[in-house]
Amino acid sequence: MSAWLACDWGTTNVRAWRIEAGRAVASASFPFGVSKIGRGDVPLRLEQDIRPALKAEGLPVLLGGMAGSNLGWLAAPYVDCPADTKAIEKGLVQPADRVWIVPGVRTVGQAHGPDVMRGEEVQIFGAPASTVQTGLFCLPGTHAKWVRVEGGKIIDFVTAMTGELYALLSQHSILATVQDPAEPDGFAAGLAASGEGNALSARLFGLRARQLTGSLAEGQSAGFLSGLLIGSDVASSPRLLGLSDDEPVTLIGDPALCAAYGRALAARGRTCQNIDGEAAALAGLISIIEGIAP
Amino acid sequence: MSAWLACDWGTTNVRAWRIEAGRAVASASFPFGVSKIGRGDVPLRLEQDIRPALKAEGLPVLLGGMAGSNLGWLAAPYVDCPADTKAIEKGLVQPADRVWIVPGVRTVGQAHGPDVMRGEEVQIFGAPASTVQTGLFCLPGTHAKWVRVEGGKIIDFVTAMTGELYALLSQHSILATVQDPAEPDGFAAGLAASGEGNALSARLFGLRARQLTGSLAEGQSAGFLSGLLIGSDVASSPRLLGLSDDEPVTLIGDPALCAAYGRALAARGRTCQNIDGEAAALAGLISIIEGIAP
Repeated sequence: MSAWLACDWGTTNVRAWRIEAGRAVASASFPFGVSKIGRGDVPLRLEQDIRPALKAEGLPVLLGGMAGSNLGWLAAPYVDCPADTKAIEKGLVQPADRVWIVPGVRTVGQAHGPDVMRGEEVQIFGAPASTVQTGLFCLPGTHAKWVRVEGGKIIDFVTAMTGELYALLSQHSILATVQDPAEPDGFAAGLAASGEGNALSARLFGLRARQLTGSLAEGQSAGFLSGLLIGSDVASSPRLLGLSDDEPVTLIGDPALCAAYGRALAARGRTCQNIDGEAAALAGLISIIEGIAP
Repeated sequence: MSAWLACDWGTTNVRAWRIEAGRAVASASFPFGVSKIGRGDVPLRLEQDIRPALKAEGLPVLLGGMAGSNLGWLAAPYVDCPADTKAIEKGLVQPADRVWIVPGVRTVGQAHGPDVMRGEEVQIFGAPASTVQTGLFCLPGTHAKWVRVEGGKIIDFVTAMTGELYALLSQHSILATVQDPAEPDGFAAGLAASGEGNALSARLFGLRARQLTGSLAEGQSAGFLSGLLIGSDVASSPRLLGLSDDEPVTLIGDPALCAAYGRALAARGRTCQNIDGEAAALAGLISIIEGIAP
């Protein structure tokens, strides 16, 4: 396998690696997520910034994530669930010579409604082979994904706006706070107040009422908000996939965020293992490159 | 009973009436809600703007709502549930000669956590006597209140941030829209997607997924968002009060918003009656004035 450039193109940032002989020999991050650059500027940023920084001029390129969205280079058609690595490799789109874009995945005909992902499928198939065959995955973040995998196929998934709700509420609402969302006592109180993930609109005002009546200690508002939102997500989102409440969970993502989800899962008596999200993205991209250029 | 000035002091606006012989003879609205004026400016606005506009110089004054909050004239202590009209009259605070402020109400020791109201108690006790003795009230708005009344007493209540969530999500989120939230087909689709008021974070992303997959018609996003949020509120918030799902509901508030809640209640097979919120506030304030100056 020759040298490649691989990018995990996010909404906010881009993570890029130069790959040689199946492993990363250089990496860098760029603030060129699709929400941060002009529409259609993916090829420009790739040529002007990312290739030079990684000394990857002229190398073949694999782009995962939002590069394949209508905000990116072009909208790569979604692969339908159930989706395995072969279907994703078959769905690769070539917008230019020696450039491949990974397609997203969508659910079809599920009772909980349609859903879509772009990038998480690379991380799931990049998880260690011992975990990837069957199970429940959770990829926490701005838009948290709960993903059911069976026999190496993504069967079904649901997305929760948990991280975006935290950002909106902590920045723009009556609950606005600049405190630390990882503060453990507030987080635990928020978890306890999340119930079964029902009545979120009412439980959120409960934070305001606690502030006004002095029943939450100073400095605990952000932790409470985080615990309430994550607790509600953990209690209710995976149930939309029809899975039992004792299914173990494989968390893939930012270690601090995975730790918060792990705490919420543990509070419900659920077990989990954590996989670093960046390592999973890299492994998934390398695996696809090996499929293109064995 | 002599002439009075009565104000329903909200977060955004102030509604004021000159009362003579137990009825309103003049009224006006002012953009002086407590979030719109300087801290401590309630007395200033009252003297400089509201009294002159209603030719109410020198009249005794009754202020309900947020005038009694820490953002208003002074923080009037909350009356504890169960609270009836006598307890509220006993809790009136006099910040100046011939000026009375209505106290708010708070829940005590409820499993769903603490909660508070300021102003809604005036509307509830201002509802026609045939409705006010016993029942479930809903006062939709930025912070919707679900209130359980028994034997003329406010027993328990819960607040849902439903209107604020709509504003946040329609202005600042990935679901941002400037469409009409009353668009009926989108509203119906959102209602249908609200389930039992669980998994709201996931169901919200369902709107984004529907947009991306083309499974929601153009122009229906705002209606869907409104239907989803109101449907979730109606399905789950009153359950926190331990009431059965077939309890009839008395809606008090803005007629258009009450109509939307009425549609969500009807979709769940629940019956309701509507009471105009402004008329209820006026009647409640007059009733309190009659208690002060019989």
